[in-house]
Amino acid sequence: MGEATSRFENIAVVAKRASPDAEQTAREVADWLRRRDTDVAVDCDTGSGPPGILASNGDFDLVIVLGGDGTLLSVARSLPSPVAILGVNLGRLGFLTEIGRHELYPSLVEVMDGRFAVESRSLMDLEVRRAGGEVESYRLFNDAVIAKSALSRIIELTLSVGGDLVTTYRSDGLIISTPTGSTAYNLSAGGPIVSPTLPVTVLTPICPHTFSLRPIVVADSNTVEVTLDTQQEKVFLTIDGQEGTKLEYRDTVRVERSSVEVHLVKVSGRSFYDNLRQKLHWGE
Amino acid sequence: MGEATSRFENIAVVAKRASPDAEQTAREVADWLRRRDTDVAVDCDTGSGPPGILASNGDFDLVIVLGGDGTLLSVARSLPSPVAILGVNLGRLGFLTEIGRHELYPSLVEVMDGRFAVESRSLMDLEVRRAGGEVESYRLFNDAVIAKSALSRIIELTLSVGGDLVTTYRSDGLIISTPTGSTAYNLSAGGPIVSPTLPVTVLTPICPHTFSLRPIVVADSNTVEVTLDTQQEKVFLTIDGQEGTKLEYRDTVRVERSSVEVHLVKVSGRSFYDNLRQKLHWGE
Amino acid sequence: MGEATSRFENIAVVAKRASPDAEQTAREVADWLRRRDTDVAVDCDTGSGPPGILASNGDFDLVIVLGGDGTLLSVARSLPSPVAILGVNLGRLGFLTEIGRHELYPSLVEVMDGRFAVESRSLMDLEVRRAGGEVESYRLFNDAVIAKSALSRIIELTLSVGGDLVTTYRSDGLIISTPTGSTAYNLSAGGPIVSPTLPVTVLTPICPHTFSLRPIVVADSNTVEVTLDTQQEKVFLTIDGQEGTKLEYRDTVRVERSSVEVHLVKVSGRSFYDNLRQKLHWGE
Amino acid sequence: MGEATSRFENIAVVAKRASPDAEQTAREVADWLRRRDTDVAVDCDTGSGPPGILASNGDFDLVIVLGGDGTLLSVARSLPSPVAILGVNLGRLGFLTEIGRHELYPSLVEVMDGRFAVESRSLMDLEVRRAGGEVESYRLFNDAVIAKSALSRIIELTLSVGGDLVTTYRSDGLIISTPTGSTAYNLSAGGPIVSPTLPVTVLTPICPHTFSLRPIVVADSNTVEVTLDTQQEKVFLTIDGQEGTKLEYRDTVRVERSSVEVHLVKVSGRSFYDNLRQKLHWGE
Repeated sequence: MGEATSRFENIAVVAKRASPDAEQTAREVADWLRRRDTDVAVDCDTGSGPPGILASNGDFDLVIVLGGDGTLLSVARSLPSPVAILGVNLGRLGFLTEIGRHELYPSLVEVMDGRFAVESRSLMDLEVRRAGGEVESYRLFNDAVIAKSALSRIIELTLSVGGDLVTTYRSDGLIISTPTGSTAYNLSAGGPIVSPTLPVTVLTPICPHTFSLRPIVVADSNTVEVTLDTQQEKVFLTIDGQEGTKLEYRDTVRVERSSVEVHLVKVSGRSFYDNLRQKLHWGE
Repeated sequence: MGEATSRFENIAVVAKRASPDAEQTAREVADWLRRRDTDVAVDCDTGSGPPGILASNGDFDLVIVLGGDGTLLSVARSLPSPVAILGVNLGRLGFLTEIGRHELYPSLVEVMDGRFAVESRSLMDLEVRRAGGEVESYRLFNDAVIAKSALSRIIELTLSVGGDLVTTYRSDGLIISTPTGSTAYNLSAGGPIVSPTLPVTVLTPICPHTFSLRPIVVADSNTVEVTLDTQQEKVFLTIDGQEGTKLEYRDTVRVERSSVEVHLVKVSGRSFYDNLRQKLHWGE
Repeated sequence: MGEATSRFENIAVVAKRASPDAEQTAREVADWLRRRDTDVAVDCDTGSGPPGILASNGDFDLVIVLGGDGTLLSVARSLPSPVAILGVNLGRLGFLTEIGRHELYPSLVEVMDGRFAVESRSLMDLEVRRAGGEVESYRLFNDAVIAKSALSRIIELTLSVGGDLVTTYRSDGLIISTPTGSTAYNLSAGGPIVSPTLPVTVLTPICPHTFSLRPIVVADSNTVEVTLDTQQEKVFLTIDGQEGTKLEYRDTVRVERSSVEVHLVKVSGRSFYDNLRQKLHWGE
Repeated sequence: MGEATSRFENIAVVAKRASPDAEQTAREVADWLRRRDTDVAVDCDTGSGPPGILASNGDFDLVIVLGGDGTLLSVARSLPSPVAILGVNLGRLGFLTEIGRHELYPSLVEVMDGRFAVESRSLMDLEVRRAGGEVESYRLFNDAVIAKSALSRIIELTLSVGGDLVTTYRSDGLIISTPTGSTAYNLSAGGPIVSPTLPVTVLTPICPHTFSLRPIVVADSNTVEVTLDTQQEKVFLTIDGQEGTKLEYRDTVRVERSSVEVHLVKVSGRSFYDNLRQKLHWGE
């Protein structure tokens, strides 16, 4: 995490979809920023899919996200290049959006005056390969989940890391998580908490049939490949819990660290462990 | 577990569906039994659904199942009254079908000569209630699983036991398991192993969001009720991993011990713990 | 759980050891009871060991415990015969002492007027056998823990249940828990929560070397026997986390349900699940 | 992992303590090496403590360890500077000693001819600080375990990482593990498997009282500090399961990455995952 002193000049404000509250706040923030001589664009698109503003214009040097962790995940996946992101939570505090509503303007003053730190978080690029060719590609910030449908039985997945065979999993599925995603679905499935800036990937089976199939932490410089070996069951790939696709027999999901990173703007002074204590009710 | 000495006079032989091997073995077993002056009916129905022979005629005093645990689960759910079941495994030994192919005829001799024990296993009856009325009903031998679909997010389920509120689960789902089912899906989800003749039900959350939501063992004389509190996600009910239905918002799944039991015929002398050691590779 | 209407006539009040607060409260409670024409004895012994008052006089029909769950565990193990126990917690509410300080006198009124329920909880009797003879015996309410010392390495324990070999555990130790103890150490070691009146025993390994060695729930009518197979390491037996002894190589720990039960007096109307939600912070 | 082509000229052969088999093999290996014009010293010391040969002479460029993982752990902690280690297992294959008895001489030929790879593994340096001063210091290869004695109750430990407070643990203890140690005690306590060359430390609680206290993976560039907050219970520190000391109230255990590394010599071509599959019985 490094100090950053440059002033932002071209700012996008993105509001949570279908939230009149976030939209209203976004317009107020934009007005506030414009009064400080900043170029501001506001995205309050009420449709689905990634924020259109980001696709159309890559020149922003800061994106302010108003909503929750879900909105920030969606924005982070959509960025064409590494851009600073400031997450503001209008509901309950999240792991990624740790500025609350009442801290909004004080935090903006800090940021505009250059008193903030930037924390680099890794993203991963994922391809679905079928019969040798690529059929789908995604970027992910939290995790990719390969899981059977509710009515299906146990599935088999063969995992390799850096070209080395790991094993064939018999389970409900497999979670491929970034350090950022380690506190999301990975944690519910029994995976470890991982410090968010480590250069690692976490591989956690979901309800494994073999009990010794434990979560594994590997270098994120290693490409992770997962092949679906089960023919008859319905299996799906989900990205950040937000989008996904159906997998076919013999499909390979290939995941590697993205060249693009997320630069989270931090003004709170709260450590990762402070967030853990608060969110996981440690010490109560 | 009690000794049984009465001679069986009316026997059904049920073969695994779509298995020429099981069908051939069933016909041989039937011939062998008939040569010992026993009334025998053979069910080699190749369709889906429960064995038709059982529905049409409830007068059997023994059902011999040739296949695997899956076939025996299907037969057990279909029995109109408590009937003795002898499970023979034509593949890898199961928890319920602990007689292997090479032990088939020696075991039949033991059974026909009255040298066997009977172990009573509980079944549960399940109703899906919607707007006050019953819309579906099932019998289960292993488990009922209420789980979100692969593309859905976390769901909320409210659990009550014996009329007392337990809690609202935020998880991927919930497993309601008999002792017999405790070594099936329950075990993969982190639930305990339960001695098969105990009068209990095991309630195990799947990937719970709250870590203190641990498996709970309750009396099977208590009715278990689970209500779906999530409106937007797709949620399914699965019975013994073999059949199921889609649940609607506010549906209640109501489970209680069935008046019908399964009477497993045991000739092996193997204890439950012997099976555990072999199946779970304990001690290696 | 049954309703009880008989009036108590001979009451012991036991205060937590070395607690001036508990001692003072005990004297006040005794005075209050005497004004209602009840025979009352007070035990405010400041020494160690079980309350002396209980050993010297078995004629009490109610024991009121002022302190916490630890004090009640100690009292329950000392009772010569099944006697009603009312637990009052002077600190943070416990699983066994669910009446708080402010509910003390209202609860006493309820009890003295016969408006209460009684919940029977099982105790277990434990013997340590060495070279065929019994060398120590204990009664337990929560659990017996067989565990290696901090500086020792993994130990081997052979477990049998009802005379059937279960397996040899390679682990840090093994917990033998009553349903009442299932929410104590058993829960920290990964064991299931068990409804407190079930006729079962829970066997949970501590940090097992073999991952498939999972918690097992068995009938409490089965005798549990654990033999220490490791010669060189220091291994201890602990009862309810309160007393214990060193085990020798080849010692066998033998546990079976006691003929004595604890009769917990309940006035709160709180269910077991209400307590779980409060203590485990479910739903937050 | 890099290829190494330089020829070793000064070799130490260390045999497992009190093992006539290892001693005999060590002398044969030394003879074999001397016939290839290599300077060889043999350590078959039958006493306790680290091998004396290593302390007296730091000029070895290769140490051949004959025994098991335990012997190699002991040697690795004793090395004054980064020296190549070749581990040969005379019993069951280990994670660190992956050359079996029958591969001994073929492997030595490979090594002496320069056909091998070197894998760098991190060591950690640990200090026990009491009243501001250092009272004990250790080096560790697998793990440092802070744990209560068998007869003690739950203990409180306060953990900080890189100067940031993490939380206060209420548990049986805490494991501080290197990646190499992740497949040892850490795995039994529920911690994740970690790829052995990652720059991380794993912090895993033992039987935590708070269920959300999950294993955490942090950067090994961060100093880990653990302070004992419990006054009355006996608590011990154990290093690699082999040596240790008693901790006092308010003692702080301080762990950071050592400047010395272990250079494991690899000739097998087996990947870390190959070892995992074999040792953990994956896929059976």
